Amino acid sequence: MPKTSKRTGNTPSSPIRRLVPFAEAAKKRGTSVFHLNIGQPDIETPKAGVKALQEADLGVIAYSHSAGMISYREKLVEFYSRYGVTTTTEEMIVTNGGSEALLFAILACADAGDEIIVPEPFYANYNGFAKSLDVDIVPITAHIETGFALPEIEAFEEKITEKTKAILICNPSNPTGYMYSVEELKKLRTIVQKHDLYLIADEVYRDFCYEGKTHTSVLTIEGMDEYAIMVDSISKRYSACGARMGVVISKNKALMSEAMKLAQARLSPSTLAQILGEALIDTPQSYFTEVTKEYDLRRRTVISRLQAMEGVICPNPLGAFYTFVKFPVDNSDKFCQWLLEEFSYKGKTLMMAPGTGFYDTEGLGIQEARIAYVLNTADLNEAMDCLEEALKVYPGRTATKNVELSAN
Amino acid sequence: MPKTSKRTGNTPSSPIRRLVPFAEAAKKRGTSVFHLNIGQPDIETPKAGVKALQEADLGVIAYSHSAGMISYREKLVEFYSRYGVTTTTEEMIVTNGGSEALLFAILACADAGDEIIVPEPFYANYNGFAKSLDVDIVPITAHIETGFALPEIEAFEEKITEKTKAILICNPSNPTGYMYSVEELKKLRTIVQKHDLYLIADEVYRDFCYEGKTHTSVLTIEGMDEYAIMVDSISKRYSACGARMGVVISKNKALMSEAMKLAQARLSPSTLAQILGEALIDTPQSYFTEVTKEYDLRRRTVISRLQAMEGVICPNPLGAFYTFVKFPVDNSDKFCQWLLEEFSYKGKTLMMAPGTGFYDTEGLGIQEARIAYVLNTADLNEAMDCLEEALKVYPGRTATKNVELSAN
Repeated sequence: MPKTSKRTGNTPSSPIRRLVPFAEAAKKRGTSVFHLNIGQPDIETPKAGVKALQEADLGVIAYSHSAGMISYREKLVEFYSRYGVTTTTEEMIVTNGGSEALLFAILACADAGDEIIVPEPFYANYNGFAKSLDVDIVPITAHIETGFALPEIEAFEEKITEKTKAILICNPSNPTGYMYSVEELKKLRTIVQKHDLYLIADEVYRDFCYEGKTHTSVLTIEGMDEYAIMVDSISKRYSACGARMGVVISKNKALMSEAMKLAQARLSPSTLAQILGEALIDTPQSYFTEVTKEYDLRRRTVISRLQAMEGVICPNPLGAFYTFVKFPVDNSDKFCQWLLEEFSYKGKTLMMAPGTGFYDTEGLGIQEARIAYVLNTADLNEAMDCLEEALKVYPGRTATKNVELSAN
Repeated sequence: MPKTSKRTGNTPSSPIRRLVPFAEAAKKRGTSVFHLNIGQPDIETPKAGVKALQEADLGVIAYSHSAGMISYREKLVEFYSRYGVTTTTEEMIVTNGGSEALLFAILACADAGDEIIVPEPFYANYNGFAKSLDVDIVPITAHIETGFALPEIEAFEEKITEKTKAILICNPSNPTGYMYSVEELKKLRTIVQKHDLYLIADEVYRDFCYEGKTHTSVLTIEGMDEYAIMVDSISKRYSACGARMGVVISKNKALMSEAMKLAQARLSPSTLAQILGEALIDTPQSYFTEVTKEYDLRRRTVISRLQAMEGVICPNPLGAFYTFVKFPVDNSDKFCQWLLEEFSYKGKTLMMAPGTGFYDTEGLGIQEARIAYVLNTADLNEAMDCLEEALKVYPGRTATKNVELSAN
């Protein structure tokens, strides 16, 4: 039998996948499962955008320009200007999801054997992409005690080698909900300028900010034209994850010219999703106001419940719709599995994403888990009831010190 | 400024792209351009499928299963059974276009530095994918004199090294229109079994066969379960190129398990395109009968016109909607550019894809070009009028021997 490649052999499976059979078994037993493990919102995609797609004249569903329909790119230019981002249709390539945007960015930046530095905990699929392309993720640990703030410059400099090609951040962060400040982005500028690196910023959660915080795009930081690569997607913004519609933007012409070769090889992004995406740009601000209000309610619900549980450490996430939590348990992989396999409270339980899958450093995240607050507050409260009860009876319960959390 | 990667540096630009500015300039001068350079059909996407998408309840456009919606995969199982292909929902991963299917296949088969053997001339983007993933395409030359039939087994064996991981064919072939016979597929089976290689078959043109020929899928060849990987797409079948909806199918479980990691890293294929694709499977056979009849008319129109031109060598393609033609010219890159830049006949000219971009061997294809017969016969006849006149006045005209073409 022919062998499969080493690079896919080295590619990790999705860390969430392992628990799916346990969730399915729980449901078969009649236990309801609250899915706090995935970032699939229950919010409706704005109807007006969907209507535009459904009423469009689709005689021949043809290829678009490899960089995306010019009408969509023009709308995107206008869209980003609302965030203070000045860009042009030539500086962007429309992609099949943020995933493809990331794929293009990594391929254009890094060769096999090269390294990309990423603050951990990080979005687990970064490792999936990197490993399959023979790129090594070099983690820099952020700490729960500081709410997962950017590690110190020294920590980056210790990790930089001649193989380092880029730093990759997620801002606002999946999985921690942390929002990088302008000062932190400027620190990163200092590093990438000094060491001639790219700074890839995954900004797909830009629209979800709380407590008056505003998001700063890497594209608005002065002096970054040659270094900054922004990855974005409509998945979370408009609750349109299944549309697979993203974009990669950079003012570095050489880089975009290389990425364009990749875009041409795969011919075109989805025409259907572009028609949807173009119409969605006209979504009124009131939609975001309402959605953010709803998420904020969910956020405060989950955070206050978690912070009230003894031994649970939960920072105050100010962006995205996740929180990364430390539990008084021996092992969160076991705990999350146990929740599905052996526990129920009033016929219900919850599913979380164990923390280890979000760290590259062996042994980290062993007491942590990611919670996506993507359900309504009634469900979230019930899920928190389950969690609270579970922590009382879980056989692997340990003591954790209540640490002082610094402000985010 | 940070450097871009060597691998994207080695990735060729689309060979067709180079001529686009000349086509645009021609149009600005008022010259009409017949686009025979790209495989973008003018045929309508079946209305019933489009209607199903446009009437679907799209409340939340959510992620689907990473391998594709189960309902769509079940329909695909039924669809392929019509072609004598026995498969299951577990043996397939639905992809964002045939392009992503190919990406997964290459990544799961081959590491950086590995080789994939491909009969040339081949679909130019194979090189784009391979190079960007550090895989080398090793060409085996097929010849116009035999209508681009499969090269002899000896030719393959001469090329196989310890780095060879797969053979990749396109059947029916883009760019030659050649259809591999059962005997040829069995020859390939002998090779892949002996040398433990994958056989990747790009079968996106399976539905376009002429003169009573029928297509043989690699998945129907006995003894190939561990070796065969089939790549497919709805782009050409239903004239839905912009939907970006493909599939990769293999009975090799280890391979599919590796490909599944890649599928999970990018989360899901397009939900919109899957709804479309699922509905399109109900397209009645009468659609294909009619469409194939139309393409056959176009094919015969183009072939008979080309074969009547002095010094032009045009085999008789029996599949897909391309023909690969040899012209009595010094250099087809120059000729194709000249057609756009300096020539017009009755205010019109034509655009073809120069042959060199479809060969990996330096110097081959220099008198050849690919013609896509994707326009109606009236337009095709006018385009052939232009070509005939152009060959009379092109300053780089050369003599070519009229060779005897063997039957396909």
